[in-house]
Amino acid sequence: MWPFGLLVIWSFILNDQWTEGPINQATKIQGGFVPKKSDIPKATVTRLSKYLRFLEYENERGRETISSREVGERLQYTDTQVRKDLTYFGQFGSPGVGYHVEELIGEIRKILGTDRKWQVAVVGIGNLGRALAANKSFLQKGFEVVALYDNAPDVIGMEVAGMTVQNVDAFSDYIRENEISLAVIAVPATEAQKVVDLMVKAEIKGFLNFAPIHPVAPDDVFFVTVDLAVLFEQLTFRIGHGSR
Amino acid sequence: MWPFGLLVIWSFILNDQWTEGPINQATKIQGGFVPKKSDIPKATVTRLSKYLRFLEYENERGRETISSREVGERLQYTDTQVRKDLTYFGQFGSPGVGYHVEELIGEIRKILGTDRKWQVAVVGIGNLGRALAANKSFLQKGFEVVALYDNAPDVIGMEVAGMTVQNVDAFSDYIRENEISLAVIAVPATEAQKVVDLMVKAEIKGFLNFAPIHPVAPDDVFFVTVDLAVLFEQLTFRIGHGSR
Repeated sequence: MWPFGLLVIWSFILNDQWTEGPINQATKIQGGFVPKKSDIPKATVTRLSKYLRFLEYENERGRETISSREVGERLQYTDTQVRKDLTYFGQFGSPGVGYHVEELIGEIRKILGTDRKWQVAVVGIGNLGRALAANKSFLQKGFEVVALYDNAPDVIGMEVAGMTVQNVDAFSDYIRENEISLAVIAVPATEAQKVVDLMVKAEIKGFLNFAPIHPVAPDDVFFVTVDLAVLFEQLTFRIGHGSR
Repeated sequence: MWPFGLLVIWSFILNDQWTEGPINQATKIQGGFVPKKSDIPKATVTRLSKYLRFLEYENERGRETISSREVGERLQYTDTQVRKDLTYFGQFGSPGVGYHVEELIGEIRKILGTDRKWQVAVVGIGNLGRALAANKSFLQKGFEVVALYDNAPDVIGMEVAGMTVQNVDAFSDYIRENEISLAVIAVPATEAQKVVDLMVKAEIKGFLNFAPIHPVAPDDVFFVTVDLAVLFEQLTFRIGHGSR
C-alpha cells in the first residue's frame, strides 16, 4: 500500500506554473475593466470560494439579499475588494439592494465551474486516500469521489467508503466511460509521475496533488499541489513575526 | 473515533484574518524598503518556502552559489520578484556572485522560524490524523509530530506511528512540559472549538486546521485552515478558463 509518508521534498502548495498575480494588466476602457481570462488573480479565485461558502451559509439561513459591505465585513475584506473581484466576471447586484444571495451563489458556481457535478478519482488508498474517500461533504460543493485506485495486491478489491479499490493499471477505460475529470494523487513521489501519465492518457484534466513532486503534464492539465510543510512554515512565520 | 468527514462547511484555505496583500504600504526610504512586519505579503511567505525547498534541493546536490535569475527561472518567477521578496528581510547575496546557497537556506529558515525545531501535536486520530502522524518527512523541515490525541475510548491507548494515542482531556500538562507549540486539528466541526480552547490554555500558538469551522482564539494564536473544496474549486476554475 502506498504510504502517505515523505510528503514534502520540494512540491508547492499551489502550482508554480500559475503565477502569483495577474499575468497581464487588465485593459482599462471607459472606467471599467475588460479583463482577459489570464488577468484574473489567483487570490481572486480563492476569495470567490470564500464568498461562495459565506453566501451558501447565509442562504441556508434564509437570507435573500446581501451587500458587498457585509460580505466584506464578515470575511475581513473591504467592500471595494468584493466588488472588484466580482467585476472581473460581469455586473452583479443592484445599488441600494445589494446582491441577490441565491442568484450570486449560482453565478459564482458558474464562474468556478461547480454549477455542474465533478466526479473525482482518488489514487493511493493509504490513510489520506481513505480520509478523502470517506468525505461526503464534497458532494454539496459539487465534487463526488466515485473511484478508488491503488497498486498493492492487498488493497485492490478492498471495500472503502462503499467503493471497491481498483487496480491502478486498469483505470483508463473506466475513467473515460464515467467522465471522471479530476483526480487526487495520494501516492509517494516515486509513483506520482507514472500515475499522472496514466491519468492524463485517461483524459483527467485536473489534479489535487499530495505527492512531493511537481509532475510534468501537457498545458491543458492543471495541478494544485498541497504541501503541508509550506502551511506549517506560514504558521511559524506568523508566530515569529506576530502578524495576522 | 473522529472521522475526517464533513470537511468543508465554510472554512477557508488560509486564515481570513490574515488579509491578502500587504496590510500597510512599506515606507520607501533612500531607495530601499523599511518594511513593518505587517507589510510582508502572504504570497512572499509562501514563495520563501518555495525558494527554501529549491535551495535545499540544490544544496543536497553540492551547489554552492546561485543567482536570483536561476531561482526565479526554475520556479517561474522573475528575478526581480525573488530579490524583492528577500529584500523585506535584509541584504542577501553579492552582485556577480549571487547567493551562497547554504547561507541563504539558513537565513530563510531563520525568517520562517524553522531554524529551531517545532514539536507538533495531532488531535483527532482518524485516517487523516494517522497519515500526518506517520509522516516522517516533516522532521527534515523542522517539524516533528510528538503527541497524538483523541477522545474515543477505542482509540486512546492505541499505538500509531510509534506513539500512544492519549486522551484529549488530559493534554495540558504534557503539552506545556514538552514545549509543544503547534497542533493539527483533524476533528469534526462540532469538536474543533472545544479542542482549540483546551489547546490555547495549554499554550499552543499555531494550528493547522482541517476542521470545517474557523475557530475563535486570542490574537496571538494563528490558524492556517485547509479547505479541500477551495482547492478543488481553483482546479475547476482553471480547467474552465484555461489559465495556468
